[in-house]
Amino acid sequence: MSNYRIKGLVAAVFTPFDDNQYVNYGIIDKYAEKLSSINVKNVFVNGSTGEGLSLSVEERNKLSEHWMNVKEKNNLENVIIHVGAESVKDACRLARFCNEKHVDAISAMAPTYFKPETIDDLIDYCSRVASEAPNIPFYYYHIPMRTNIQLCMKEFLWTAAKRIPNLRGLKYSHWNLSEINLCRMIDNGKYNILYGMDEQLLGAMVFGIDAAIGSTYNYIGNVYTELISSFEDGNLKKALEIQTFAQEFLEIIFENGRGITSLKTFTSFFLDINLGPVRCPLKSVDRNSIIDNSLPKIKSLMEKYNNKYKLKTGDA
Amino acid sequence: MSNYRIKGLVAAVFTPFDDNQYVNYGIIDKYAEKLSSINVKNVFVNGSTGEGLSLSVEERNKLSEHWMNVKEKNNLENVIIHVGAESVKDACRLARFCNEKHVDAISAMAPTYFKPETIDDLIDYCSRVASEAPNIPFYYYHIPMRTNIQLCMKEFLWTAAKRIPNLRGLKYSHWNLSEINLCRMIDNGKYNILYGMDEQLLGAMVFGIDAAIGSTYNYIGNVYTELISSFEDGNLKKALEIQTFAQEFLEIIFENGRGITSLKTFTSFFLDINLGPVRCPLKSVDRNSIIDNSLPKIKSLMEKYNNKYKLKTGDA
Amino acid sequence: MSNYRIKGLVAAVFTPFDDNQYVNYGIIDKYAEKLSSINVKNVFVNGSTGEGLSLSVEERNKLSEHWMNVKEKNNLENVIIHVGAESVKDACRLARFCNEKHVDAISAMAPTYFKPETIDDLIDYCSRVASEAPNIPFYYYHIPMRTNIQLCMKEFLWTAAKRIPNLRGLKYSHWNLSEINLCRMIDNGKYNILYGMDEQLLGAMVFGIDAAIGSTYNYIGNVYTELISSFEDGNLKKALEIQTFAQEFLEIIFENGRGITSLKTFTSFFLDINLGPVRCPLKSVDRNSIIDNSLPKIKSLMEKYNNKYKLKTGDA
Amino acid sequence: MSNYRIKGLVAAVFTPFDDNQYVNYGIIDKYAEKLSSINVKNVFVNGSTGEGLSLSVEERNKLSEHWMNVKEKNNLENVIIHVGAESVKDACRLARFCNEKHVDAISAMAPTYFKPETIDDLIDYCSRVASEAPNIPFYYYHIPMRTNIQLCMKEFLWTAAKRIPNLRGLKYSHWNLSEINLCRMIDNGKYNILYGMDEQLLGAMVFGIDAAIGSTYNYIGNVYTELISSFEDGNLKKALEIQTFAQEFLEIIFENGRGITSLKTFTSFFLDINLGPVRCPLKSVDRNSIIDNSLPKIKSLMEKYNNKYKLKTGDA
Repeated sequence: MSNYRIKGLVAAVFTPFDDNQYVNYGIIDKYAEKLSSINVKNVFVNGSTGEGLSLSVEERNKLSEHWMNVKEKNNLENVIIHVGAESVKDACRLARFCNEKHVDAISAMAPTYFKPETIDDLIDYCSRVASEAPNIPFYYYHIPMRTNIQLCMKEFLWTAAKRIPNLRGLKYSHWNLSEINLCRMIDNGKYNILYGMDEQLLGAMVFGIDAAIGSTYNYIGNVYTELISSFEDGNLKKALEIQTFAQEFLEIIFENGRGITSLKTFTSFFLDINLGPVRCPLKSVDRNSIIDNSLPKIKSLMEKYNNKYKLKTGDA
Repeated sequence: MSNYRIKGLVAAVFTPFDDNQYVNYGIIDKYAEKLSSINVKNVFVNGSTGEGLSLSVEERNKLSEHWMNVKEKNNLENVIIHVGAESVKDACRLARFCNEKHVDAISAMAPTYFKPETIDDLIDYCSRVASEAPNIPFYYYHIPMRTNIQLCMKEFLWTAAKRIPNLRGLKYSHWNLSEINLCRMIDNGKYNILYGMDEQLLGAMVFGIDAAIGSTYNYIGNVYTELISSFEDGNLKKALEIQTFAQEFLEIIFENGRGITSLKTFTSFFLDINLGPVRCPLKSVDRNSIIDNSLPKIKSLMEKYNNKYKLKTGDA
Repeated sequence: MSNYRIKGLVAAVFTPFDDNQYVNYGIIDKYAEKLSSINVKNVFVNGSTGEGLSLSVEERNKLSEHWMNVKEKNNLENVIIHVGAESVKDACRLARFCNEKHVDAISAMAPTYFKPETIDDLIDYCSRVASEAPNIPFYYYHIPMRTNIQLCMKEFLWTAAKRIPNLRGLKYSHWNLSEINLCRMIDNGKYNILYGMDEQLLGAMVFGIDAAIGSTYNYIGNVYTELISSFEDGNLKKALEIQTFAQEFLEIIFENGRGITSLKTFTSFFLDINLGPVRCPLKSVDRNSIIDNSLPKIKSLMEKYNNKYKLKTGDA
Repeated sequence: MSNYRIKGLVAAVFTPFDDNQYVNYGIIDKYAEKLSSINVKNVFVNGSTGEGLSLSVEERNKLSEHWMNVKEKNNLENVIIHVGAESVKDACRLARFCNEKHVDAISAMAPTYFKPETIDDLIDYCSRVASEAPNIPFYYYHIPMRTNIQLCMKEFLWTAAKRIPNLRGLKYSHWNLSEINLCRMIDNGKYNILYGMDEQLLGAMVFGIDAAIGSTYNYIGNVYTELISSFEDGNLKKALEIQTFAQEFLEIIFENGRGITSLKTFTSFFLDINLGPVRCPLKSVDRNSIIDNSLPKIKSLMEKYNNKYKLKTGDA
């Protein structure tokens, strides 16, 4: 397992809902197919983008199962399941289910109402969860802007190494590239860092990161694939141009609110499937009004970039 | 139901665990009996003190059931169940169970990972939860220091009145007595405010509050009962003296860490029952060392107050 | 000096500006006279309400001097000067000036850009400042909601006692009444706590506090004087009624923005003097529009309270 | 002036103090000479590193003058002065002095006690300050981790363009590289972004940034010069290696506390001059103990990097 390593893009998938905010499991096969069509072969299920913490354990397990069921057919390479929960009991149950279903990897954020106060407390929590799926790679999910858990990730990896045998790395959602570089340096790159800030992926790549999890890969995965190959070909100028395009694209979407609701609405539009609304306490928006508001700007942005970075869009 | 009103002290009960952090349901009958013996007739189950968010839905429901089962035998008057959860699905399921079991009241805090951003979002969440137990009084649980949800409670009550028919008030855990007074004034005291800062209860009483939920009532409920009766008798001087005693008492306990772990350890000691450790991610402490550290100070404090405020203690 | 003790209300005075945001020193005599007319005999100069940190050292000293000059004529009893500053050098210079001018007391908040991280660091700063005015009572100004300096005030007083001979107490601007009570208990009430949350003054009084500094005393000092005397006469019911009136009054004012700008505009109106705009970076507002907006509500509020609590108002 | 553009490294210089925390102006000539010897030709005076807010206006002006006086002799190219202050009055006075002394550029952070709440308020403040030195390039200093002012910098630049004629760009101290890239894109790179997170400079360079202000350039400016030239030569591998070295170096220094105190102590050591202690409220440390603690680790780090990146050190 210490050889397990995710490379490239991982779509942090949305959870499809129907109009009453019930999970719409039936659409997952088609969703996987659409992702595949824009070159995204890995999915991160039940994370922040998927409103994982707004789901029940049963729903989360059923979603994991559905994604595993469509994996082979749609040529997905890795199905990674987020199993973090406020209750370590729930997190363990989610991890056990993943173990039974042989998912490719699991990840957990820490509880946020009762926060682990020290590295040691965090490791205690993670080791309980990870040990329920002892043969599945485990990634700690660091997202301090949401959890306000500010512990040092380098120290975490150093200290956790002995206590969590299946620890494989981090899902790291913060801007600080120095910290990821110091994490990457441990034991000659032993750990696999999955970078979580799409808008800054190029920066992370310069610091040796070669994997990313994000919500924008749901709809411009193909664009980011080109960014990665440009970078790998040594064409830093082109890579920056693409990253800038992706940033400006996101800015337009975020004019409708900086969050999951906007991203989900546009993903539905661009993939031409109906992922539905978000679930309470997030607030849904009127889909048509925000599409109508942003589409002219998006078209103009695409023209500016000479249509070089083809998006798979419904009608755009 | 609009006549339902909790008065007096409500113990925010701890969740008993065994050494492996499994819930120890067997001890609840005895726990209720002990509380009764120090004059506490109401309990708030699965809240912050009870580490509610660290429990699974099944555990929470089983705990609710156990408390309801021992209610009559121990002359408990109100069993209030906290049903808040990150997932509105879980919160609704908890509320439905409470409805079936005819608990006396329910309360819910808002999700904290995905926070309601407006009063309207908060009401949307609360109304979904409350409507699952339409004949049971509902209290919104406001605890901004932990949730970082800073919405105005006066505005919440005003606006929610029409949309949550069983809304009965607030569990209010913050220092701001002006806000509770403005809430109390709505419709001539229509709402029942349950105050959550034990150290400042006297202040809240001056502002017309006559009910309180707290963790310290687990072990000095009798002392606070005397505080309340002193206040009601117009003896403000004595009431302040007792409140000061309770504050100094808490300061001694908090020298061992300002949180649930210390409070639970001392409650076990004073009630002479074994409530066990806390659950991960909270960190348990060595019971004996902190008792040994604090007991001399507590004894000296009690002497200073002339043993006027009798504690029910094991060996103190 | 250890007998020095402020009692009753202290108006946190505004700094009068002309339309170009220059200090309007000429109006201070009249301002003092107006305060005197509503029973306010003490002033706190250059604090938060006075936008002290937005003034230069020279302006602050000139303001101190002007207030000292009008003191006797207007029967002011205490002129307290805030001397806190980001630079300890500035704070010391301000304190030296106060020493020369024989002001009644000085107070300093801690620097907020570089924050003292420990009690010890805070005492180091305070002792440097206080020692520049060794014969003038010194009050540390605790306002954690603005400074985000969360140090324990009880521990501060205990530890500072030996190192700051002229330490007389605290200006305490937070809701936590337990902390002020524990501070009050030190050495049988040795320290003089000046309470800073006007809306909750009654709560503080129940905990033994008999002095208050606030911005609302600028315009309803007479109302609060009646609150205090009602409380001292043992008429808790009336005291609460007045406190509630003052809270509702403030709510109306804060509908125009929760801050100094609104308070200053209404003070100008009620005292019938022109205190002018606020200084950048605070944003001034159109005086007439907010007065017009709130006056009907204020009149209706006053009718509700049967005109019992007479305000000194211009035209209201 | 719109052609003015800083390129390369700017040392955020420390303010030298004697043992009594008085400014030690006499050492500045030597300090400039030392910086020059490690290839640093630009200085940023009175910023965070220089404890600018802990100095009086007089001290700040005297420091500005001293740096201007030694500029030519030591071949400094740009002397940039930080003029931000809590009081706009002070900031304007500092700016006027800079104007008289013909410094190369000025920069100002916003007040932090009273924070500008909107872009408009921020521009109001900046335009007042910048207009006092109308012929000197002005940079807004964005450092949200310290000021907690979170306004959008892209929007600031867009909106301020018309109101601050001498606006030249930003000193940007945050990790977010997407925001700096979006700022850089405005009007084809019209603005000059001075990057403030030394540990992540390589990341910023990938996003088109070619200037940096930081405290670590005080002692490893030569190392960073090599980083920049490696990057410009297209040797990304070597650039990353050097950036990693600089990060690991900083980690060792920060084992003694993550702040100015540690950085200043090591700068004194590496430049072999005595910059003295820090000023209250920062806490000074015992110089020898922290040097002794870290030197073996630093030597071992340097060996690991084959002494490729020569430091100018006293005895190391």
